[in-house]
Order: sequence, then C-alpha cells, then structure tokens
Amino acid sequence: MKIPQRGLGNVSFDEKSGMLVLGNKYSKRYYMNVAHTRKFMQTLLVASYCRRLVEEGRHAGIRELYYALKHTITGTRENTFEDQVESNAIAEDIEVSLDLLREQLNLTADRRGYLYGDILIRDGEDEFNASRLGRGGWAVPGTVEDIAFPEVSAEYILVVETAAMADRLIEEKFAQKNGALIVACQGQAPRGVRRLIQRLHVENKLPVIVFTDGDPWSFRIFASLAYGAIKTAYISDYLATPTAEYVGITASDILNYELPTDKLNEQDVSALKAELSDPRFKGQFWTNEIELMLEINKKAEQQALAKYGLDFVTDKYLPDKLGEMGLM
Amino acid sequence: MKIPQRGLGNVSFDEKSGMLVLGNKYSKRYYMNVAHTRKFMQTLLVASYCRRLVEEGRHAGIRELYYALKHTITGTRENTFEDQVESNAIAEDIEVSLDLLREQLNLTADRRGYLYGDILIRDGEDEFNASRLGRGGWAVPGTVEDIAFPEVSAEYILVVETAAMADRLIEEKFAQKNGALIVACQGQAPRGVRRLIQRLHVENKLPVIVFTDGDPWSFRIFASLAYGAIKTAYISDYLATPTAEYVGITASDILNYELPTDKLNEQDVSALKAELSDPRFKGQFWTNEIELMLEINKKAEQQALAKYGLDFVTDKYLPDKLGEMGLM
Repeated sequence: MKIPQRGLGNVSFDEKSGMLVLGNKYSKRYYMNVAHTRKFMQTLLVASYCRRLVEEGRHAGIRELYYALKHTITGTRENTFEDQVESNAIAEDIEVSLDLLREQLNLTADRRGYLYGDILIRDGEDEFNASRLGRGGWAVPGTVEDIAFPEVSAEYILVVETAAMADRLIEEKFAQKNGALIVACQGQAPRGVRRLIQRLHVENKLPVIVFTDGDPWSFRIFASLAYGAIKTAYISDYLATPTAEYVGITASDILNYELPTDKLNEQDVSALKAELSDPRFKGQFWTNEIELMLEINKKAEQQALAKYGLDFVTDKYLPDKLGEMGLM
Repeated sequence: MKIPQRGLGNVSFDEKSGMLVLGNKYSKRYYMNVAHTRKFMQTLLVASYCRRLVEEGRHAGIRELYYALKHTITGTRENTFEDQVESNAIAEDIEVSLDLLREQLNLTADRRGYLYGDILIRDGEDEFNASRLGRGGWAVPGTVEDIAFPEVSAEYILVVETAAMADRLIEEKFAQKNGALIVACQGQAPRGVRRLIQRLHVENKLPVIVFTDGDPWSFRIFASLAYGAIKTAYISDYLATPTAEYVGITASDILNYELPTDKLNEQDVSALKAELSDPRFKGQFWTNEIELMLEINKKAEQQALAKYGLDFVTDKYLPDKLGEMGLM
C-alpha cells in the first residue's frame, strides 16, 4: 500500500490554488514487513468497514468505527486497536489514499453550527426553506454530501463565529433584507460547515464572507475556512474556499469604531507573531492588521459593536464594510 | 431593593417538588448606602435596558447587554461596569427578584443543541414539522418563550448527550418508529434546551428520558435537567423536570452488555464520591450505580454500544431499557 504522508513536512502553501496542500512524499506499507503488519491489518479492517457502510447506505462516527472494530484477535492477546487515535489515523490514511473525503466513505464528523437564510434544502424526502424555521435555523449535520440545493435565492454566505451575533442578525432580519445566508459556525468551523460552504461556493457561485471576533484565534477560523488547515491539508480541495473574504473585527475596526476591548494575553501575542510567518496570512492586509493589533495590544469581540446599540451592526458596521467589498 | 440570595447557603433540595430551590434569605440594597450605591445604579441600568428590550420586542445576549451598558459616567472616572461578571450577576439578581426567567426579559442565553421528531413548531409566521428537516434537525434557539407547539405527535422526549448518538438514532429512524422526540444537548444542556424540555413536559405531558455517556459528568447532565442546578436553583421551576428518568449508560450496563470502557481518572472518582452526598442522587438506584462504578473503576461512552453493530442501540439496548420503563 502506498499512502501519501500527512505530516507537516509534506504540507505547503500552494500559490496557484491559494490553499494548503500535500506534497509528493509517500509512505509504503507492506504486509510481510513485521513493522508494518499491524497497520496493514488495521487499514484493511477500516477499509472493509467503510465499504460495508457505503453498501448498506449507513453512516458511522469515527468513535463508532473504533468501538465496532476493536476486538482481541482470536487465538492471540493482540487487540486490533488499542486507542481511538490509531483508528482515526487509519481513517485519514484511507481518505488521503483514495483522494476522497471520509464523509464520502460514510464516516461522519462531529457536528456544530446552524444555517439561516433563503435557500431550499433537499435531504432525502425532505425539502424545506432554511429561512422559514423560526429563529432556530437549520442544524447543519456532520455530513452534507447527499444534500441538494434545488433553489438558492441568497446572494452570498455570511459565516458568523458566535451564535449570539448570528442570532442578532437573524432577529434584525439581515438575511431577508440583504440576501445573506447566515452560517453560525460557533467557534472553529466543523468539517460539515466547511464542506457546506465550499459546495455552495463552487456549485452556486455564492461569495463567502467571514465575520468573527477580532483576535488571533478568530483570524485562524477565517484562515482554515479560506485556505485550509494543516491537519486537513490533504482535503483542502473539498473544504477550503480561497476566495473567502474577511469582514472583521479587525484591529483597524477597534480604532475606527472605538470598540470596547480587552488586553492581549501572552498566548494571543505569540499566536499573532506566529501568524506573521504563516503563508495564509501573507499580503499587505493581514500583515498590517496583525502588526496593528500587536501595537495597540488590544482585541475585541463581535458583541462589542452593541456599544452603539443593537442595530449598529446591521445598520452601520456591516453596510459600511460589505459596501467596501461591493456586496451592499 | 430586596433581592433573594442565590449563594450555596440559600440553596436546598426540596423534597416535595423534587428540585433544588432557593430558601428565604434576602439581601437588601440601599441607594443611600455608599457600599450599595454602585450595585443599586447597576441594577437600575440593567432593569431599564430590559424594559426597553421588551418594549421594542428585541432580544439581547448578556454579552451585548454588558457592552451596551458599559460606559464611563459623565464627569467621573467611574465605569458603570468593569467586567461582564458584574452585569451577569445583576441580570441574575433581577431574574430572581421578579421571579421571571431572564429570557422573559428578552435576555437570551447562549445556544447549542438540536431537535428532531414529529412535532409542529410555530415561531412567528413560521410553522414546520421538526421531523421533515432532513438529517439536520432544528437548531434550538437560546430563547424558546415565544415558540408554540400546535401539534405534538411524538410520545416522549429522548434527550441525548452526544450529537453522534442523536445522529445514529435519526439515521435508524428511531424517532419515526418509536414516537420519540430526539433532543441532542451536546454536553451540559443549555438553558434553551432545558426550558424547551420542561415546557413540552408541562404543556404536552411528554415523559422525559435522558440518555448519556456512563460517567459522573454525564450523571450531572441528567441531574441538572431533572432536578435543577445550584447556579440556577432560583429558576428550577422553569428549567427542571423532576420526573425525568435516566436510561443509561449505567455501571450495570457496562457489566450486563460487556461494553468497552476506560478507567476512571482522579477527577472522575472524586466527582462520583461528591455525588454520593448530593441530594439529587439519593435513592437506591443512584447509590447502587455510583458505588458500582467506583467498584469496577470503569466508565463507558454511548458510542461503546457500536461494539455489537450500529443498530444494537436501536434494536436491542433502547428497547430493553425503555421496555423496563414501560415506554416501548
């Protein structure tokens, strides 16, 4: 078996596609090499389990996969897997070898996040408009491979980091008034959310705008969505949307809007410094914003905009910033 | 102003209602007492902000409330609030003084969790059936006060700790086949989810069944849902459902079904020991299960049931256990 390496040494930023991608380094796994036999066996176990899932039209979480395959091999004291770390790694090996998403092998990732806006979603026999689900919105499942979008009236995707801000936009009818499809990722965007956004961008040509807190960790939420993450560099094709744009909160916003702030802590400072040499943050925009944040030594949250009233974000901040991007 | 105390010294377990409740201790807050003036001012600020929210029919998060009210008082160097901890505490003071949920004052809590099953939900002009939203389900909002349930065909609520298990039940059509309304709480149940469950129990007489991992922290997820939590003892009336029943995973399940386990760590052991003297866990069932878990020194996850195949939980485990409860 020939398996592309997924380690940092085989990950690089591809200028052409604008994504983190894998290089050409491979590992080989031999059945007859004692050092490889265990992993060889594990790879076949996971692969055949996935095949069964696809044949039965069932999905399983990677934790279920682990428990389903863990057993003591008859006549030995050897366990197939000692720890979920082992089976997770094998699932990723198979993903990268076949150049498929694990979701396409019916392995689901953990889920979080919801969606609100004028889009018709079809899943199996169900069809519904995600702007007609009250203030709740549609909970995005871990796997969105089988979902179809028969009608998309929203004009762009607005990814929002916090549920509180997404709910503010929903209450102010920002989706209806501005043709936005609001996607709340509730922290680092899970795979289902990243894949949904990428599919809507590729299949329906929706521009993607990202709106987060103004701190180094939120910048990384944007970067993973846009350019991919090291851990999932081998599937950036499926998960990344390199044309995604960042709306804020930026260090400039903190100054321009005189936002309430908190001081950077040590972790914040070193995260910002690391970002200065991260290829995903090169270019004048990010260099300026990161250096400015280090200089003013302050960060701010999306909710800080409430200083000027609850509707400031929908009546002033987003129109200003999206206007500059040509979206409003 | 007379404000009921919310500290541990004023919280007790009420045998009659089966919930954690507040006692009769009050604090008084005087405008003319210099030690009280600051809190007095803060209380009026938050109260009048809530009044405006209700009048305008708007909702705000407690973080938005903080940023909206934080400012330097004209002619002084004094800030209205230094930290969100201050404004959060005042919001709770007002909640307890008025014997109202903060959600009824249009302050929303953070949200998480989703719902799937045969129930018609009405929110404003929207009306939809939560079993027709594909595999995603309905994302439960932070505030469920204004939501109506015009038609409830589900026969009981099955609260599920992990999204992975909730999704397993959704995929196996457990909701359709067994009249269950599946509520994924994704960890400790947020206020919106607890209130939704309590309302459906009180208004529609749905029994509530809780299905979590088998460890001390999951036991607490059940206890908070059923009997309330210390932090929110003053609103147990609104959030707790004392007739809720626990289906598993129990220590007995670990033995009876020979489930894959992990060893208890130090924190697990002291949490279990603390539960032995927690009034919410008194009674033979919990005493036995907690002591058994300490004895076998093992915990297990919901997903561990996948050892016997993905449909073991829907074809064997839940029918067995719910059968004992008279629900299947």
